[in-house]
Amino acid sequence: MSTKPELKNDLLLRALLREPVETTPIWVMRQAGRYLPEYRATRQKAGDFLTLCKTPELACEVTLQPLERFPLDAAILFSDILTIPDAMGLGLYFTEGEGPKFKNTIRSEADLKKIGIPDPEDDLGYVMDAVRLIRQELGGKVPLIGFSGSPWTLATYMVEGGSAKVFANTKSMMFDRPDLMHQLLDKLSQSVASYLNAQIAAGAQSVMIFDTWGGSLNTQNYREFSLQYMKKIVSQLTRENDGRKVPVVIFTKGGAQWLEDIADSGCDAVGLDWTIELKDARARIGDRVALQGNMDPCVLYASPERIKQEVAHILKSFGHGNGHVFNLGHGIHPTINPEHTGALVEAVHDLSKQYHTK
Amino acid sequence: MSTKPELKNDLLLRALLREPVETTPIWVMRQAGRYLPEYRATRQKAGDFLTLCKTPELACEVTLQPLERFPLDAAILFSDILTIPDAMGLGLYFTEGEGPKFKNTIRSEADLKKIGIPDPEDDLGYVMDAVRLIRQELGGKVPLIGFSGSPWTLATYMVEGGSAKVFANTKSMMFDRPDLMHQLLDKLSQSVASYLNAQIAAGAQSVMIFDTWGGSLNTQNYREFSLQYMKKIVSQLTRENDGRKVPVVIFTKGGAQWLEDIADSGCDAVGLDWTIELKDARARIGDRVALQGNMDPCVLYASPERIKQEVAHILKSFGHGNGHVFNLGHGIHPTINPEHTGALVEAVHDLSKQYHTK
Repeated sequence: MSTKPELKNDLLLRALLREPVETTPIWVMRQAGRYLPEYRATRQKAGDFLTLCKTPELACEVTLQPLERFPLDAAILFSDILTIPDAMGLGLYFTEGEGPKFKNTIRSEADLKKIGIPDPEDDLGYVMDAVRLIRQELGGKVPLIGFSGSPWTLATYMVEGGSAKVFANTKSMMFDRPDLMHQLLDKLSQSVASYLNAQIAAGAQSVMIFDTWGGSLNTQNYREFSLQYMKKIVSQLTRENDGRKVPVVIFTKGGAQWLEDIADSGCDAVGLDWTIELKDARARIGDRVALQGNMDPCVLYASPERIKQEVAHILKSFGHGNGHVFNLGHGIHPTINPEHTGALVEAVHDLSKQYHTK
Repeated sequence: MSTKPELKNDLLLRALLREPVETTPIWVMRQAGRYLPEYRATRQKAGDFLTLCKTPELACEVTLQPLERFPLDAAILFSDILTIPDAMGLGLYFTEGEGPKFKNTIRSEADLKKIGIPDPEDDLGYVMDAVRLIRQELGGKVPLIGFSGSPWTLATYMVEGGSAKVFANTKSMMFDRPDLMHQLLDKLSQSVASYLNAQIAAGAQSVMIFDTWGGSLNTQNYREFSLQYMKKIVSQLTRENDGRKVPVVIFTKGGAQWLEDIADSGCDAVGLDWTIELKDARARIGDRVALQGNMDPCVLYASPERIKQEVAHILKSFGHGNGHVFNLGHGIHPTINPEHTGALVEAVHDLSKQYHTK
C-alpha cells in the first residue's frame, strides 16, 4: 500500500515505454549543475562537492533546483557515479579543476581481494536517503530518475585512480589479464544491480546506466567488457515501483555503432549522443526500444532562435510515433546561459505537439 | 625526367590503390615520436618542438628514425598539423605539458580579414625542404606520406586558440555565424589543397588528411563543415608523382558512422579508428576504397603475445583480398615500449602473408 502522491506528469515513463504522449518529454543530463547560480550557491554552502553528494538535504535541494526554473519532465537524483567505488573503500576525493581521484587503485589480485559488494542501505545510505527525500519533496510533480555508472566506466576510474583519456592501465589489464578485469567487472555489476534496486526500492521511478567510457573500446571488447555486464545488471533489476513499470535506459557515449546490440540488452530505452541522426537510429532499431537524446550540448551556446531550429530538426528526425525522450547527447556544459536551457525546454514542448496528434 | 631512385618497397601504394600485395603493409601514426629514445634525443638537441618541426635536417632525422628500427612500409613526414595556421600569422607556440597554443584567435570578421592563403614554398618552405630532404635520404626504401590537418580540425584550434575538449567557441561560431565559419573553412581548404600539392611536388608519394575533431560533430554538421571541405581539397589535388598515382587517405577520428560518405569523397582510402570491425567496414563500403587501420593503440601496452593475437584478429576481420593498410586507430602513445612496436610490425608481416596467396 503506497502512501505516495499520484504522479501528475508521467510523460517520461510513457515515452520510455513507447506509449502515446501529448508532447515529447524532456530532461537534461546534469540539469542540476554548475550552469545554475543557485547550484553554485548550494555547493558553496556545502563546502565541497563530495559533502554536497553525501548530505541528503543538499542533494535534494540541488536536484529540485532546475525544476523550479524550467518545466522539465523529470528529476534526476543528484549524485556522482563514483559513489560505489568510494563505498568499496577506494577513498574518493576531488581536487579543484582536476576531477575525481582515488586514494587506492585496483591493479592486482591483492587489490581486488580488498573490495567487496557494498550494502546500499548500510554503505550508501546517504544516496537512498536522498532518493526518499526527493520523492517526498517532489510530491508527484514529475518522476525521479535514479542512476549508476556502468561497470566498465567505474572500472576505468578504479584502475587509473581517477579520470583518464587513454586508459593505459585499465586497457593493459583488460588485454593482458582479462581474468582479473572480469573479476572486477563482476563485482561491479553485482554492486550496481543492488545499488539500482535499492534506489528503486527507495523511490526511483526509472533508472539509467551511464557508460561514459564504453565508446573507448573496440567492438569485441565493448561486447565482452562493457555491454555484457550492463545486460547482467538489467536482468537483475526490479522493474516495478508504485504499481508501474520502471524503465531502464542504457547510455554508451560514442556507442552509436553498437545500437542494435544495446537495443537487444533488455533495456527499455537507449541514450544517444549527437553523432547519429535519430531517423537513422530509428530505422536501425525499429520499435524495439525508445530513444533518448540527442542534441549537441554546444547548441546551447547559440541563440535561442538557433536552439529552436535545432530542436525542430531533431524532432522531425525522430518523426511521428512513440518512444522519444528529448535530451542533450551529453551533460550540459557549466558555462551555458540558463536562459538558453529555458528556450530549449519551451521549444521541445511547443514544437513536439504536432508529432503526437493522431 | 626524374633522377629519383626507384621505389624498392611499394606495398603501401599498391594497398592504398587496392592492387595485389604479398604482405599487408604497415606504418604507425606518430611512428616518429616520443616513445623512441632517439626521438627524445633529437628533440632535446633541437631545444623545443617547433624548432624540430622547422629545421628540415632535424625533421628528416626523426622521420627516418623508426625506419632504422623497424621494417615499416612507409615514412611519414615529421611535422605538425598547425603549420598552416602558424603560416597565416596566428603565432603557434607550445608550452610543456599543455599542448599547442596560438597568440591570436579567429572569432570575428575582422580576425578573418587578417589571414590569407599561405604560399607553400614562401611561407612553409621548411616543410617542403624537409620533404625533399627525406625523399633524398630515403633513397627509394619506402614511400613518403605527406599530410595536413582537415579544415574543420584546424579551425577548432584557430578559434579556440589551442587544444580544447568541448569546442565551445568553434561551435558557437558554427551554429550562430555559419557564414563566418564557412569563410574560415574556405580559406583553410584552399590553403590545405595548395599545401598538399606542394608536398606532392616536393616528393610526397601519398597524402593523408587528419580530421582529428570531425567526430565531435553531428551528422548534418559533419557533412557541411568537415567532409564538404575535405572533398573540395581531394578534387584539387595533383594525383601523380614520378609517374605513379598519389593515393589520398582521409581519416576522421570517431567517423565510423559516416564511412559511406567518406568513401564517396573521392579519396582512395579511409583511415579508421578501432571502434569498428574491419569486416563490418568492408561490408559497408565494398571495394570502393581501401581501409587503413585499426588497432587500439592501447594494445601495445600488452605483451607481444597478446599484440600478435590482436593483429591476427584484425587481419582475419579484413580477410582475403586487396586494400588493407595496417595501422593503429590513433597515434602511438608516448609511453609505449618500442620493442612492442617491433612485435607489431613483425606480426603484421608474418601473419598477413596467408591472406595474399591466391
